Amino acid sequence: MKQPDRQQFPALKNKAYFNYGGQGPMPESALSAIFQCYQSIQEKGPFTAEAGLWIDEEIAATRAAIASELGVTPDTITLTENVSIGCNIPLWGIDWQPGDRILIGDCEHPGIVAAVDELARRFDLQVSTCPLMETLNEGNAILAIASHLHPTTRLVVLSHILWNTGQVLPLTDIVKVCHVFSQNATPSRKIRVLVDAAQSVGVLPLNLTEIGVDFYAFTGHKWWCGPEGLGGLYVSPDAAETLHPTFISWRSIALNSTGGLGGFKPDGRRFEMATSAYPLLAGLRKAIAFHQDIGTSEERYDRIQSLSHQLWTKLRDLPDIICLKSTPPEAGLVSFQLNETLQQAGATPDKMVKFLERKHRVMVRTILQPYCVRAGVHYLTLESEIERLIEGIQDYGQQI
Amino acid sequence: MKQPDRQQFPALKNKAYFNYGGQGPMPESALSAIFQCYQSIQEKGPFTAEAGLWIDEEIAATRAAIASELGVTPDTITLTENVSIGCNIPLWGIDWQPGDRILIGDCEHPGIVAAVDELARRFDLQVSTCPLMETLNEGNAILAIASHLHPTTRLVVLSHILWNTGQVLPLTDIVKVCHVFSQNATPSRKIRVLVDAAQSVGVLPLNLTEIGVDFYAFTGHKWWCGPEGLGGLYVSPDAAETLHPTFISWRSIALNSTGGLGGFKPDGRRFEMATSAYPLLAGLRKAIAFHQDIGTSEERYDRIQSLSHQLWTKLRDLPDIICLKSTPPEAGLVSFQLNETLQQAGATPDKMVKFLERKHRVMVRTILQPYCVRAGVHYLTLESEIERLIEGIQDYGQQI
Repeated sequence: MKQPDRQQFPALKNKAYFNYGGQGPMPESALSAIFQCYQSIQEKGPFTAEAGLWIDEEIAATRAAIASELGVTPDTITLTENVSIGCNIPLWGIDWQPGDRILIGDCEHPGIVAAVDELARRFDLQVSTCPLMETLNEGNAILAIASHLHPTTRLVVLSHILWNTGQVLPLTDIVKVCHVFSQNATPSRKIRVLVDAAQSVGVLPLNLTEIGVDFYAFTGHKWWCGPEGLGGLYVSPDAAETLHPTFISWRSIALNSTGGLGGFKPDGRRFEMATSAYPLLAGLRKAIAFHQDIGTSEERYDRIQSLSHQLWTKLRDLPDIICLKSTPPEAGLVSFQLNETLQQAGATPDKMVKFLERKHRVMVRTILQPYCVRAGVHYLTLESEIERLIEGIQDYGQQI
Repeated sequence: MKQPDRQQFPALKNKAYFNYGGQGPMPESALSAIFQCYQSIQEKGPFTAEAGLWIDEEIAATRAAIASELGVTPDTITLTENVSIGCNIPLWGIDWQPGDRILIGDCEHPGIVAAVDELARRFDLQVSTCPLMETLNEGNAILAIASHLHPTTRLVVLSHILWNTGQVLPLTDIVKVCHVFSQNATPSRKIRVLVDAAQSVGVLPLNLTEIGVDFYAFTGHKWWCGPEGLGGLYVSPDAAETLHPTFISWRSIALNSTGGLGGFKPDGRRFEMATSAYPLLAGLRKAIAFHQDIGTSEERYDRIQSLSHQLWTKLRDLPDIICLKSTPPEAGLVSFQLNETLQQAGATPDKMVKFLERKHRVMVRTILQPYCVRAGVHYLTLESEIERLIEGIQDYGQQI
């Protein structure tokens, strides 16, 4: 694996950065590609036959680049503005019947929880919450999910990597359990698994075909270090047969020769939503290409694990810090709490995060459930940044 | 009214441009603002408390700038990726009952027609189409709509300016007819009017409060000359009381102090959809500011009408061209067909559009229903561009 040239990331020049789980820094190559596309659109168009062909090519190239990273074919990929839209497309596109059940993990992002709640209100669905936070250090997530399935369960909503605790769920086995449970159901009644992949794409080596997941929603702007405002959704060929587009636009449909409706597009474009910021497409492809140039996805994941292990070890050695996870992290997210001594002195995760940003220019974030500090470690992370974070935490303890 | 400095628009330097109805050219000030924001986000963040505050301010400033142009308060504005999403939010957010009716104009964009069709299939609704194309030169659009209302009609879907013929609908009167028709209904059963404002925002002087419209979906990237990928939706305070968010994300909701759900945001942000390309916000504000600096919306609209009248007159004087409209255009869109002589010689709108782009670098577009050529005239348009379009059309007639 190559040593990444961090000089290519303007964001990394003036801070120690651990918020890859919020938004990744963009490489210069991606920023330049975006700026060039803006200029090129003005040169070619903005609205001309030439510009239209160019946009079609950009969309096709980006769907292909993403598909290749996820181990799937380009026709299964829908480009979306973000991961939330990628989750909402399957949520609202299933042919719900009153009384159908959704099973959702207890560590899902509040935005998705709110979407599921509204969906349940509209279609008279039952929502069960599966306790997964308690499986971080003991127990078994697969069994927890299996024991919450029900004959009327139609959708299981989970993250591949939990955004708060950093736990990596054994997705292949979970999908298998859900599909086997409903193996005698008709395709439209089969249990589908919808994954919020905000924290896993760009971290885990992925082959979604082998995993067998039904819906996998992701974003380019976190671990992939692409621009904010561009993500996507994978829909398996099997699940696509029973999923309907909800928010619909000219980009979803084909026209016949007289301009009449010619049905939905045959591939993932049927779920895409009209005009978007097309210059971002080249930006994301450049970001993905940067990572590919550094090493394979397995090599990059190994490096993330090795660095997050380092951080976790050093945190564990601090007397007043408690890591949520009692064994080394499986991916890049490392979350920790403050012990009672610090809390009694008035310390909180929120105050610590603000102190670190202001005084040390070390960027981590607060999580509210459970109330903790979350640091994200990328393969771009330096050992010296980890050292700076540890020193900052020690300094905070001394200032309290 | 000031003379606009066309040197500020890179797109206008190498062509005669008439596709404002497809996408407007961006001024340098908007492009620079976007590039600066990308760099500033890397400098401040990308994900830090400082960057988060900046994004909140950008969103608030943009909602306020848009609201001011539309004659409404900022709380009624939702930022969306585009006009289609702005239409889908009300379509899917109404509490539909089986048998409810939607009335849609016969000149609506196929993307919206497809959305209405799918909505009707899902919720067992009746869709009626109102013949408005035939009111372009005679008849009365208000009466046409009034005669198609029904006791179970709950939504009327129209464009303020029809994208194919350029007709400006008398929206204030149409809204009044719809609201009076349902004046004894409960708020949730009142007839609502959803407007596709893709062709009207940036053209017509607007006061949506006075017009009384319920839902007005627009984009910044056409007549406002902002970046593609940013638009919005106005929801009247009255209509907002009965509209539910459908695609939901962290941006729609409030959180309580422990990270639990605290309900939807009290204003238009409840319909906004998660992470978007925040640098575009400053770009749109700069584009709007450019227009404001040139003159009032009334002055700019007068100039558009005067120039489109010029184009229409010259087209009418061409022996082989038939303008769809038999009287001068009310706004910037001028659509025309080829007479039988040209058609018998093998000419088609599509071939003419390609010829004009390739040989004359004159940019117009084809419309399929009715099959015609559409030219869009902005206040930025030069009389010499109109001359070039006319010469190009004459040249095409001679080459055939």
